[in-house]
Amino acid sequence: MKLSIEIIGFIAAILTTSAFIPQVYKTRKTRSVENLSLSMYLVMLTGVILWLIYGIYIESYSIIVANLFTACLIVLLLNYKIRFSRQ
Amino acid sequence: MKLSIEIIGFIAAILTTSAFIPQVYKTRKTRSVENLSLSMYLVMLTGVILWLIYGIYIESYSIIVANLFTACLIVLLLNYKIRFSRQ
Repeated sequence: MKLSIEIIGFIAAILTTSAFIPQVYKTRKTRSVENLSLSMYLVMLTGVILWLIYGIYIESYSIIVANLFTACLIVLLLNYKIRFSRQ
Repeated sequence: MKLSIEIIGFIAAILTTSAFIPQVYKTRKTRSVENLSLSMYLVMLTGVILWLIYGIYIESYSIIVANLFTACLIVLLLNYKIRFSRQ
């Protein structure tokens, strides 16, 4: 794949993945998880894993990197949702 | 691009895009936008537009469709954020 195209993909990957970080940070700090929808994040995680498989098939590093990071952030949010809901 | 790969892409597109819909619905119903971060959604919109350009370059219909829909949902949320913040 052309380098210039992958650069666009990587910038997009950084922007859309980093948009998750404030939510993870806020949830960790406030421990308030009522607003977090478990089903929404499970749907999103499934979608992100499929994008990961898609990226591997079409050999797009930006899609792979973006969805790998996003999957980790969502798993972190799901972990907080389960842990902080019990308290 | 192979049909089976695009099908994976389309399922991923439907899942990750539909994950936005509960947030749009809840915001429209409750009109409460304090929790919506303007900067986060502007960052995300920029990223989604770059993914759209990326999808056009690599001729991936699932990336194009997913990011077109997501861009529309984010613009809707930004519209609510601006309108409902004034009230």
